[in-house]
Amino acid sequence: MTGPAASGAGFELLSSDGAARRGRLTTAHGTAETPAFMAVGTAATVKGLTVEQVVATGTQIVLGNTYHLMLRPTAERVAELGGLHRFMNWQGPILTDSGGYQVMSLAELRKITEEGVTFKSHIDGSRHALTPERAVEIQDLLDSNITMVLDECTPFPVEEAETKRSMERSMRWAARCKEAFRRREGYGLFGIVQGSVFPELRRASAEALVEVGFDGYAIGGLAVGEGQELMFSMVEATVPHLPQERPRYLMGVGKPADLVGAVLRGIDMFDCVLPTRSGRTAQAFTGHGALNLRNARHQSDPRPLDEACACPACKDYSRAYLHHLFRADEMLGPILLTQHNLHYYQSLMANLRQAIEDGRALDFAAAFEEEQAKGDIPAL
Amino acid sequence: MTGPAASGAGFELLSSDGAARRGRLTTAHGTAETPAFMAVGTAATVKGLTVEQVVATGTQIVLGNTYHLMLRPTAERVAELGGLHRFMNWQGPILTDSGGYQVMSLAELRKITEEGVTFKSHIDGSRHALTPERAVEIQDLLDSNITMVLDECTPFPVEEAETKRSMERSMRWAARCKEAFRRREGYGLFGIVQGSVFPELRRASAEALVEVGFDGYAIGGLAVGEGQELMFSMVEATVPHLPQERPRYLMGVGKPADLVGAVLRGIDMFDCVLPTRSGRTAQAFTGHGALNLRNARHQSDPRPLDEACACPACKDYSRAYLHHLFRADEMLGPILLTQHNLHYYQSLMANLRQAIEDGRALDFAAAFEEEQAKGDIPAL
Repeated sequence: MTGPAASGAGFELLSSDGAARRGRLTTAHGTAETPAFMAVGTAATVKGLTVEQVVATGTQIVLGNTYHLMLRPTAERVAELGGLHRFMNWQGPILTDSGGYQVMSLAELRKITEEGVTFKSHIDGSRHALTPERAVEIQDLLDSNITMVLDECTPFPVEEAETKRSMERSMRWAARCKEAFRRREGYGLFGIVQGSVFPELRRASAEALVEVGFDGYAIGGLAVGEGQELMFSMVEATVPHLPQERPRYLMGVGKPADLVGAVLRGIDMFDCVLPTRSGRTAQAFTGHGALNLRNARHQSDPRPLDEACACPACKDYSRAYLHHLFRADEMLGPILLTQHNLHYYQSLMANLRQAIEDGRALDFAAAFEEEQAKGDIPAL
Repeated sequence: MTGPAASGAGFELLSSDGAARRGRLTTAHGTAETPAFMAVGTAATVKGLTVEQVVATGTQIVLGNTYHLMLRPTAERVAELGGLHRFMNWQGPILTDSGGYQVMSLAELRKITEEGVTFKSHIDGSRHALTPERAVEIQDLLDSNITMVLDECTPFPVEEAETKRSMERSMRWAARCKEAFRRREGYGLFGIVQGSVFPELRRASAEALVEVGFDGYAIGGLAVGEGQELMFSMVEATVPHLPQERPRYLMGVGKPADLVGAVLRGIDMFDCVLPTRSGRTAQAFTGHGALNLRNARHQSDPRPLDEACACPACKDYSRAYLHHLFRADEMLGPILLTQHNLHYYQSLMANLRQAIEDGRALDFAAAFEEEQAKGDIPAL
């Protein structure tokens, strides 16, 4: 056990295979096996699924969004109602982002200063402020097991000089978050490495965070359009500068192939809206690539989505039925496909964990890539 | 057992209490205890719920809509895929309506002749025809356990002379449906009494149907704006002319108080979109009347929707959380409230069945009415 003994969220490194790691995250609300995929539960719900259904997909840890929750229902109301676990009836670990990314991507009239960021809500136009201290306070009110530091997520592409200025401010914010964070057993604070696609800035950012000291380290500002190759090379530029004994979290990533490649490069945690959002738009991930269930070629197909899958959408329904549900705009289409996609992601993670334990992570990745070329939508 | 011995859907009358009856419907796909509320599964899905969730509400029989299914995915495709039970993964009894009501309420450019009705699809404008024979054929292709005859559902209000002409044609259509119906063990055909709000026409219609002979008798053309009092008086005008040994189905009804009153008047089966549709629009039925979960007064309320209810929405969540889900337009709001409302309806039916067995149906109804005045929306 290499996590802080008397406080923080613990991380245990169980085994490794090349750079790939098999570990376990321990929090006040239970554990999550790593490499882990966190289901995105933006507004205190994994869109379209009951908690029982989320559990059934194999999901062990859920992500909540500070930006959304601070605006509605507000962190204070969640605290009054017993915290996010109780509010949304999720008994397992919860990680919350800091709101930095959503302020950049969703809010209006944002203004960033050394102090923090002010912005207008995309929901009702009301004005709000986020400082490093307030971001930590909100996550504390939510009772999040893993708090993320407030950072500025630079757009892509961006100039190196601007990236450096932004990253250095994010590092000062990270130190202020550490200062503001209330240490408790089973609760941790993660720093976020920034630096866009500049390896030297990534290294400098990682070193600055390690100097401050966090319970885990995230790599932020990727999956914003730079492409898989650059993303992987930034992971490679960052991981060597992070401590072995702490979990590493690649934020907002990604497609199944991104997860496999990043795990091989030493990443332990992921989150992404892709399985849930794709499920709502009729895109299914399968062992043989992705399918678009709206496609007319599925309309009379009695086969399950994925013969190898044990999820309810695959066990009990035909492709023809799923096609019908999407054509008829029935809620059950998004529900079943979200279930399936999350189940697919969690099975992929479970298989990766097993492959690492067995010392065959590279073979697993090679077989995975070969099968993926067979779907409707090989690009996914 | 008073159902046809070697064919048809069986109906067993177990006990009675005044006019109220406790019975059991037996089909090739299992049984349903009566009085029964059928969950509406219009397009081969009970909107918003998985089949497991529908079962968990206590639902024993589901209704499918011929009009919707004939247009999409088509009855032929459902047949090719193994029938409606297999297509939608519902293993219990299914009743399908004949499409008559939806042709009147949804389709465009409808034209009615003695032969049948032609209309334009509300989905894609394509032209279709329904005759008594085709309505029966479609329901046979769907593998429906209970087929409804094709009828014309008159609007409200309507002149007596026009009602009479329409009803008499519906009776000729009913006889043609009987002729066309393929008798099989565990499958039945129900006639539909028409006659709007004219007691003499209701009597004449019931007698005409009994003369032909059906496995069950529905009362159609009500719940179209005539109000509860007129509806009940039409039930009273019809029931004495129906055979004791056959099930009676009041179509499209209704609010909880409508169900209670109609059961007291001898009705055995119901269907209505109210619990599912209300669930999607934040209306909850409870033992103390109806609530609107969008109402701001629920925003910090830690109490469950209904303390006495054992459904997941009540067991695991606060009113504040349900309010939040609807404010945030999250799918889980409609999902949980649909579950709750169906659970509420099915519990009401189970309680009614128990009250009839115990010979205290009238007492139950009186206590029910008293509690109902306490909600946000007493009108519901």
